[in-house]
Amino acid sequence: MMKPLITLTTDFGQSDGYVAAMKGVILSINPEAIIVDITHNITPQNIVQAAFVLNTAAFFFPEGTIHVAVADPGVGTARKPIILSTGREYFVAPDNGILSYVINELQGKPELKSYVIENPEYWRNPVSRTFHGRDIFAPAAAYLSRGVPLENFGKPLLSLNTFTIPQPRRNPDGSIAGEIIYSDAFGNLISNIKENDMPGGEIMIEIAGKMIKGLSLSYEEKTGLLAIIGSSGRLEIALRKGSAADYLGVGEGTEVKIDTYNTTNTTKKYQ
Amino acid sequence: MMKPLITLTTDFGQSDGYVAAMKGVILSINPEAIIVDITHNITPQNIVQAAFVLNTAAFFFPEGTIHVAVADPGVGTARKPIILSTGREYFVAPDNGILSYVINELQGKPELKSYVIENPEYWRNPVSRTFHGRDIFAPAAAYLSRGVPLENFGKPLLSLNTFTIPQPRRNPDGSIAGEIIYSDAFGNLISNIKENDMPGGEIMIEIAGKMIKGLSLSYEEKTGLLAIIGSSGRLEIALRKGSAADYLGVGEGTEVKIDTYNTTNTTKKYQ
Amino acid sequence: MMKPLITLTTDFGQSDGYVAAMKGVILSINPEAIIVDITHNITPQNIVQAAFVLNTAAFFFPEGTIHVAVADPGVGTARKPIILSTGREYFVAPDNGILSYVINELQGKPELKSYVIENPEYWRNPVSRTFHGRDIFAPAAAYLSRGVPLENFGKPLLSLNTFTIPQPRRNPDGSIAGEIIYSDAFGNLISNIKENDMPGGEIMIEIAGKMIKGLSLSYEEKTGLLAIIGSSGRLEIALRKGSAADYLGVGEGTEVKIDTYNTTNTTKKYQ
Repeated sequence: MMKPLITLTTDFGQSDGYVAAMKGVILSINPEAIIVDITHNITPQNIVQAAFVLNTAAFFFPEGTIHVAVADPGVGTARKPIILSTGREYFVAPDNGILSYVINELQGKPELKSYVIENPEYWRNPVSRTFHGRDIFAPAAAYLSRGVPLENFGKPLLSLNTFTIPQPRRNPDGSIAGEIIYSDAFGNLISNIKENDMPGGEIMIEIAGKMIKGLSLSYEEKTGLLAIIGSSGRLEIALRKGSAADYLGVGEGTEVKIDTYNTTNTTKKYQ
Repeated sequence: MMKPLITLTTDFGQSDGYVAAMKGVILSINPEAIIVDITHNITPQNIVQAAFVLNTAAFFFPEGTIHVAVADPGVGTARKPIILSTGREYFVAPDNGILSYVINELQGKPELKSYVIENPEYWRNPVSRTFHGRDIFAPAAAYLSRGVPLENFGKPLLSLNTFTIPQPRRNPDGSIAGEIIYSDAFGNLISNIKENDMPGGEIMIEIAGKMIKGLSLSYEEKTGLLAIIGSSGRLEIALRKGSAADYLGVGEGTEVKIDTYNTTNTTKKYQ
Repeated sequence: MMKPLITLTTDFGQSDGYVAAMKGVILSINPEAIIVDITHNITPQNIVQAAFVLNTAAFFFPEGTIHVAVADPGVGTARKPIILSTGREYFVAPDNGILSYVINELQGKPELKSYVIENPEYWRNPVSRTFHGRDIFAPAAAYLSRGVPLENFGKPLLSLNTFTIPQPRRNPDGSIAGEIIYSDAFGNLISNIKENDMPGGEIMIEIAGKMIKGLSLSYEEKTGLLAIIGSSGRLEIALRKGSAADYLGVGEGTEVKIDTYNTTNTTKKYQ
């Protein structure tokens, strides 16, 4: 039988004892649990960033995995702690939008079910005001991994809070306007334009006043800025042997435009 | 039966091969060991910081856990490598004060027993001059996790070296004077004033020339600076959606005063 | 029976979902695998640094361990993904020099065998252009850990690409000229001069215009700069309670000279 697998995504950093406290709580409740870190380096309180990173990693884990995600500025307020069951895996998190990308990815799956974690039997006792990661989310994940039925944690919730994920726009002339939604540790700028949103034929990509001709097939295909379909199936802007984010001085929210080659204004500066 | 659980707290950072070398040594001696990182980001040679972080995480782990803590500027000198048994868990560390907070927490427990790790049978051979984490502490923890009796490692020690943990002072007028003992990755300033040291009634907290009225129940309860009982049961100074440490420009050692509300000098600048 | 042990060394950082995606893929293929991080903080695309760090940790792991190493600027180009079997452990990596230190360490071992990972049966499907860590190296390691024979992955390779590791020079007068090959998180400067390359008798070490008399036996033996045989058996330059790298303002490539004491120019500035 599969070992129970629990992942952790937080903004707790790796310098304090917070993450380890969560792991200690989990292993005290279920010593068989295998715990894997997704990341703890989410910018403090950045729910959008946490939501994105969680989505890039969660679906590579085996069926039955329990994903705990905690970037939780509203800890101690009325926002609800919840469990989302997708029919394939579980997410344990505050209901503050942190599951937005995951829910978007699973759009239209009828198996999505959510429950509030409100039964104190599955909390640490007492619950601190400031650290529900340790006192509510970690114990809930650990009990879930021991097979406690979803209904035991609390009432079902009909819908979860999500933020709007920016979608690329297709213009009447066939061009696409999207935006950067994540900048990774290499300085690769990841856009919200997916491979199957891309127009056919020769293309020209514009970002921060620079033009990039066509897609590359590797980060070493040419010097300077390049555009490539990255590992999450999205259009990325990268810089060979460097950081595109630093080079361009831009990040999340920056517009990315794709024109078909013939219609591009050829007076612009080429990269 | 419980799997043997070993935690690691070091100042080795996460960029070099040092932590992994320790894990390789542990798993070579006991392939069944489950290894959990507390942190490796202790400021180099900062024994006080390591002692604090260890204490915030260690007691959340199951009975029988072996905690290895290595911030060890005196490696290769006469300071002794030791094992502390608390009756519930074990600590493996240099006898340089790194267990001070843990020992303070366990004050008066008759079950505390310490042993020197001096039997070379449980060392790597040869022992390097600079890396006892790999050559003495990791192997000792691994052998301990395999059930080697404490007495086999070496002689008992009657007392361990500890540093003095600053204690809050209660003034005759009922006010409390404490200090910041740790600043976490969120910039929350954690004081040495515990919940049951707090005076009753309405209070006013003073830090770095700023006054904070009363305790908050969440980080979002009000804007600006707030005071809250944090997850370790201590008074913390936090800044909503920000870093109190950066905002105030202070850290460890900064005084925190608590007055009862009526006696506070109301000419001071309020926050 | 030993659990299958897989280590990871990458330049992916710890902020994105990339490392976790690799772990999810491994655990999906082999739920029994124990995964240990060596480091993910290699400077982006720094193959030499990755090669050095891998070598400082890999050989402390048990027989049969599978070491995955990915700093791979050429992902998506013609560079081959390979498995190196040493007769004791395995390395799974791009053939871009990242195994140079390991191969140097194992010089002359007849058991070294290499295979190209070219059988798509052991890849994820589809393979992304930019993330072979997830789509080729992680699955190959996972299948290898399940006992898939080396020959199944692809053709044997007669030789691997390696870079030249700088070797210390012994001068006719008995002095030694080496260089710094790694600067660790403490700021210790690690040279390519091994303990058995050192001249006998009284020595004087010169680096960045500073002179250090003799070897120390601990980091606390004297104040200021000191020279010591570090944990990898190499001559290191360290600064008591500080960073030698910051103090001297030097790093990889800096020359280190060892003279025998009597022949040293005593007009130079002593440390």
